[in-house]
Amino acid sequence: MKEIGVGIIGTGFMGTAHALALVTAARLFDLPARPRLETVVDPDPVRAEAMARRFGFARHAADWRAVVEDPAVDLVSVTTPNHLHRPMALAAIEAGKAVWCEKPLAPTTREALEMTRAAEDAGVPTAVGFNYLRNPLVRFARELIEAGEIGEIWTFRGIHAEDYMADPDTPWSWRLDPGAGGGVVADLGSHILAMARFLVGEIAAVNGDLATVVTDRPETPASPVRRPIEVDDVARALLRFSSGATGSIEASWVAAGRKMRLAFEVTGAKGTVMLDMERLNELRLFRRGAAAGREGFVEILAGPEHPDYAAFCPAAGHQIGFNDMKAIEARYVIEAVAGGRPFSPGFAEATAVQAAVDAIRRSATAGGWQRPADILYEAGGPT
Amino acid sequence: MKEIGVGIIGTGFMGTAHALALVTAARLFDLPARPRLETVVDPDPVRAEAMARRFGFARHAADWRAVVEDPAVDLVSVTTPNHLHRPMALAAIEAGKAVWCEKPLAPTTREALEMTRAAEDAGVPTAVGFNYLRNPLVRFARELIEAGEIGEIWTFRGIHAEDYMADPDTPWSWRLDPGAGGGVVADLGSHILAMARFLVGEIAAVNGDLATVVTDRPETPASPVRRPIEVDDVARALLRFSSGATGSIEASWVAAGRKMRLAFEVTGAKGTVMLDMERLNELRLFRRGAAAGREGFVEILAGPEHPDYAAFCPAAGHQIGFNDMKAIEARYVIEAVAGGRPFSPGFAEATAVQAAVDAIRRSATAGGWQRPADILYEAGGPT
Amino acid sequence: MKEIGVGIIGTGFMGTAHALALVTAARLFDLPARPRLETVVDPDPVRAEAMARRFGFARHAADWRAVVEDPAVDLVSVTTPNHLHRPMALAAIEAGKAVWCEKPLAPTTREALEMTRAAEDAGVPTAVGFNYLRNPLVRFARELIEAGEIGEIWTFRGIHAEDYMADPDTPWSWRLDPGAGGGVVADLGSHILAMARFLVGEIAAVNGDLATVVTDRPETPASPVRRPIEVDDVARALLRFSSGATGSIEASWVAAGRKMRLAFEVTGAKGTVMLDMERLNELRLFRRGAAAGREGFVEILAGPEHPDYAAFCPAAGHQIGFNDMKAIEARYVIEAVAGGRPFSPGFAEATAVQAAVDAIRRSATAGGWQRPADILYEAGGPT
Amino acid sequence: MKEIGVGIIGTGFMGTAHALALVTAARLFDLPARPRLETVVDPDPVRAEAMARRFGFARHAADWRAVVEDPAVDLVSVTTPNHLHRPMALAAIEAGKAVWCEKPLAPTTREALEMTRAAEDAGVPTAVGFNYLRNPLVRFARELIEAGEIGEIWTFRGIHAEDYMADPDTPWSWRLDPGAGGGVVADLGSHILAMARFLVGEIAAVNGDLATVVTDRPETPASPVRRPIEVDDVARALLRFSSGATGSIEASWVAAGRKMRLAFEVTGAKGTVMLDMERLNELRLFRRGAAAGREGFVEILAGPEHPDYAAFCPAAGHQIGFNDMKAIEARYVIEAVAGGRPFSPGFAEATAVQAAVDAIRRSATAGGWQRPADILYEAGGPT
Repeated sequence: MKEIGVGIIGTGFMGTAHALALVTAARLFDLPARPRLETVVDPDPVRAEAMARRFGFARHAADWRAVVEDPAVDLVSVTTPNHLHRPMALAAIEAGKAVWCEKPLAPTTREALEMTRAAEDAGVPTAVGFNYLRNPLVRFARELIEAGEIGEIWTFRGIHAEDYMADPDTPWSWRLDPGAGGGVVADLGSHILAMARFLVGEIAAVNGDLATVVTDRPETPASPVRRPIEVDDVARALLRFSSGATGSIEASWVAAGRKMRLAFEVTGAKGTVMLDMERLNELRLFRRGAAAGREGFVEILAGPEHPDYAAFCPAAGHQIGFNDMKAIEARYVIEAVAGGRPFSPGFAEATAVQAAVDAIRRSATAGGWQRPADILYEAGGPT
Repeated sequence: MKEIGVGIIGTGFMGTAHALALVTAARLFDLPARPRLETVVDPDPVRAEAMARRFGFARHAADWRAVVEDPAVDLVSVTTPNHLHRPMALAAIEAGKAVWCEKPLAPTTREALEMTRAAEDAGVPTAVGFNYLRNPLVRFARELIEAGEIGEIWTFRGIHAEDYMADPDTPWSWRLDPGAGGGVVADLGSHILAMARFLVGEIAAVNGDLATVVTDRPETPASPVRRPIEVDDVARALLRFSSGATGSIEASWVAAGRKMRLAFEVTGAKGTVMLDMERLNELRLFRRGAAAGREGFVEILAGPEHPDYAAFCPAAGHQIGFNDMKAIEARYVIEAVAGGRPFSPGFAEATAVQAAVDAIRRSATAGGWQRPADILYEAGGPT
Repeated sequence: MKEIGVGIIGTGFMGTAHALALVTAARLFDLPARPRLETVVDPDPVRAEAMARRFGFARHAADWRAVVEDPAVDLVSVTTPNHLHRPMALAAIEAGKAVWCEKPLAPTTREALEMTRAAEDAGVPTAVGFNYLRNPLVRFARELIEAGEIGEIWTFRGIHAEDYMADPDTPWSWRLDPGAGGGVVADLGSHILAMARFLVGEIAAVNGDLATVVTDRPETPASPVRRPIEVDDVARALLRFSSGATGSIEASWVAAGRKMRLAFEVTGAKGTVMLDMERLNELRLFRRGAAAGREGFVEILAGPEHPDYAAFCPAAGHQIGFNDMKAIEARYVIEAVAGGRPFSPGFAEATAVQAAVDAIRRSATAGGWQRPADILYEAGGPT
Repeated sequence: MKEIGVGIIGTGFMGTAHALALVTAARLFDLPARPRLETVVDPDPVRAEAMARRFGFARHAADWRAVVEDPAVDLVSVTTPNHLHRPMALAAIEAGKAVWCEKPLAPTTREALEMTRAAEDAGVPTAVGFNYLRNPLVRFARELIEAGEIGEIWTFRGIHAEDYMADPDTPWSWRLDPGAGGGVVADLGSHILAMARFLVGEIAAVNGDLATVVTDRPETPASPVRRPIEVDDVARALLRFSSGATGSIEASWVAAGRKMRLAFEVTGAKGTVMLDMERLNELRLFRRGAAAGREGFVEILAGPEHPDYAAFCPAAGHQIGFNDMKAIEARYVIEAVAGGRPFSPGFAEATAVQAAVDAIRRSATAGGWQRPADILYEAGGPT
């Protein structure tokens, strides 16, 4: 059986998630190729070694270039902070390797576009970790929409709210670095914008606002020195889709009590479909026209009739978890790298998401409606 | 015991609700005066007579002026379509009567301001039927906020979604008449804007968008002729509050599956409080700082410890309904008319809500952030 | 218009609820007769006078016999503690008056049967306040069942849990008096047994268990003396219905956190219907056979298409409350007294409920399956 | 690093789940030994080979004895139908191997006891797959109970309802074979009885009822011949715990709409804790004594502060799934086999569960309260 050598840069939550996802996917799906864990990288050799041992990587390294230069590696997973994605991805692409990068793809549309073009020029497959699109019920929601079951789409509302930055004493980090593309509109906003595009399509224009509610934070966990914060804690935007639908998104990392509330509600002429990732195994579907007194939202539990669920369990309602969505992502990454259909969302799609992020930023600064297409055009991309 | 003569203009859902609310309030609360049902008005004498008989009005009439001219009437309820509020209220005020008017107060801020000034000049009490503010749990939410239990307020999200106009064959009506102040931003948006102000305070600026999704409707239920629609089916706005908090509202009357989804989520530095009127007896409260593993939203069931609930039931969880909120409203209307503290929201507050509505309309047309205070100023009101 | 003179014994939660229900029903429904509030009774003259004044009773009294002897009274509401129902109802019946009695009807089946026979002999209408059966969605659930929409009924599960006795320092009261028919199986169990019968029919046999978890309580609120408790705090029973369906009920008044959790789940060969009174405006309906991936419980919001709802509001989702269910009950009480169809549940049905209560008690003492029909037979009733 | 050779008998849902769980556990937890997949067994060589290839088993076989005889195997997973557990487990034990067996352990208490004794005599570790006890929130619930946070336990209510047998045309299978220990009281009842014991402790007596609602089923999927059904589709029992607490359980595999509703509610003198496996990442906790108006169930989302969750994700609310609970189970199985603390629930605990199952069966037949301890005693076990 064909094999695909994998190198993973990063051993944090996402690095581990990528590795586990590959391991799981190879066991639960009929993959066209078997992922072979080659090299794992972490600047901390103890962490690198521990992860190599646990997951069975052949090698580990402190310098990410080890992965890029490893001839046994066909696919490079990039799970480092946002601003490091570009150099790593470009080097991997230059070395002819496929790249599986965490979101957001890059701090700016320009960088994202550069990465996309490099991959296209090199002809290497790319993938970006918008893993919530892999939820079987999200896929099913899109199928319902595409099949016209809720009619012409009229409105979209998307929220991604968490509270991991709600404590004003949570210290400064790269997520708060404007130079590194920090801010919630990039960190969580990119997820909900990707969802909006996945379900409703191209975003023609955005009209946004950004707010910083925690205005300074400790330099480091222990530090008495507080550093001013220049990035957004809350981002909101009104949306106009190319299809004519309208909508809104909100992203917040200071939403007390919310842990993983990526939620959407899509309404069309014939019905509504909605989901909240804090209950990722439940989809709610309303269709107009039920018999008198019997109208209502149907609470659908994820089951084997929804895409990819059956690999995990033959029975509905038993539930999949976060890592299972990542395993589904890994399935399609491996299929793409093995030569099947292109993976989506790849770099091009992630660049479009980034253009929407940047359009919201511009709108918040310059005011009014801004077009992601203009952002993309100015960055040198397609209009 | 002191009595207050009441005249009600309108016998529809709201006219009936006002009458029932007065009847209920007089029985469940210790009112300083007893409402006495004097005159009810409906152009259809059969309806007027039926309501008079059922509720025990002393008289009924087809012409609303009968109420205004009735010397036995101290309080006039105006429950007619929006554009009729002004002439009726002004006549009632001129006759020295208190006015309890349904929302929205008027088609425009200018008219609302005129009504407010007239009432102030005449020194008559006014009340506007933003009845959802009367929900004991909404009152309690405000008390929590005012007491600082969720800290400095950072964000607000408000939605009022229903689907009574979702069917493209629902015919044209005054709600769709731009000249009469039609459109969802007025019809439902006013409710959620009133809620935003009630919970978070003055709205400094709005940045909005309006969308019409059903572009024509039958002239009449039976008509084959379809009339173009010029008002909004969906309204959205980003908000900036004077306090520095930010937020958003959305109003839709084409939200398939939503029947009474007036929902808000207010987040502060220490917690979050939220409520959805489709479960009007449940408040969710999250406060940061719980013991490890025990953090979460508390689902609070309305009970006698919340404002006004005890009058309906001595035990929590037994639930009040829509008409009970209206009865609470009636309680405070009667108290205000009897000489107690001013009722809020009265005309002045409803005018401020209308200014926010008009600011969203202007923003949707002219673009960018618009200040309700400017709308008010241009209408001749306070800056 | 025909009028029905009403006397109400009791001014507590239920006395007030009866009075308000009559007032509301007369205004929202097209009744064949108008209730006229004649006499209200409370041993405390201040309370009696206050309620008379608020509700407009013509008279008030301290002795309940005043109501029974009042020639202007056609209908007597009995809202006193359980053990007082019998003498009051018998006196009212003897005086030829209709009786609307709160549940449970009597401390024992024998007494309930005596009351039923007296009413039948006198030919007076009777009604018992199992108000939860009046919930429009409960009525609708029964219609669904009767129409076969969930197929042959296989199972029933019913719970009525509250926590008003959960505090061990809640003092002794008549509800705890075994001589007065105290205990939760009577107080709350009767509600859920009435529900079981309403939805699934005759209960052929029960197999029950009773538990006392708070074994002594203060004699009075202030008392240091604690009185041993002899009645049940928790009651459970397995059920066998005459139809062949099986099920269970549980009643508890020490269920920490439950305020009004009267919940049922009825499953048949084709589906399931369920409701929880803590969300009394929501019914969940599952029907087998939906298209692939679209199966699930439908969350139905109470609306005008469900029995009696439209009188309160022309739109779904706006919600009715506890007192509205009582107003619906009052509607049918008045219709019955005015000469329409018999009210159900009347005394005969409440006697059957009481027989089920007593069968559970017997089962808990003597063990094994006990038949309510045997209890009834031994009490001198029909087999 | 120490290694543990594993053989798995069965390649169905549970065989796959065991294999995946071992793979995952080895990567996410710091195990004292690494599981090494040696042999997998399925009578169908295609299935056996496919699973061997996917999971990397060294060998595969059609005859289960291959695993028992494999000297490289230290731990035998038994995931075959119920009635096959005994011979396989006994052979494995005889060969000195640890056994990880799916539930229920055996068709009868006698057989379960025999297996338990054999394992004790041989000194081999045993584990039984009551995986729902591994849910981090179930563990946390038990910690809350043990810490007294909800006070002395008063009541327990447990339900395990699914609908995989609701269709009368679902054909006959070993689950319906009375000789193989079939029936829902064994299949699902054992889960909820294990949960009851896990949370509240020893069950002193049960009083149960069994019902068969689908009285015949096709012999095989295609067969026109229907076979009479002799086992229970619905099982219910009242419970008395040794602690003095009381409760009930219900198990049904014909519960239309239920997919994985293993739900419990435990109430004590100070509060209530509840969970429903259809939302396995949510625990509801009510504690008496909150400030006025702030009382309510707290909805706790599973997070890293709950046992074992952190291995899967560093953030709350991201959710684990069914297979993750199995991975946690595998963690403790490996730890036990590697020489750590004994695994619980092992065979002894599963035998106690089986005794409760058999006591319910006896009660359903013979009537009245039956003691699991008597069942155990009669089977030759401890009293």
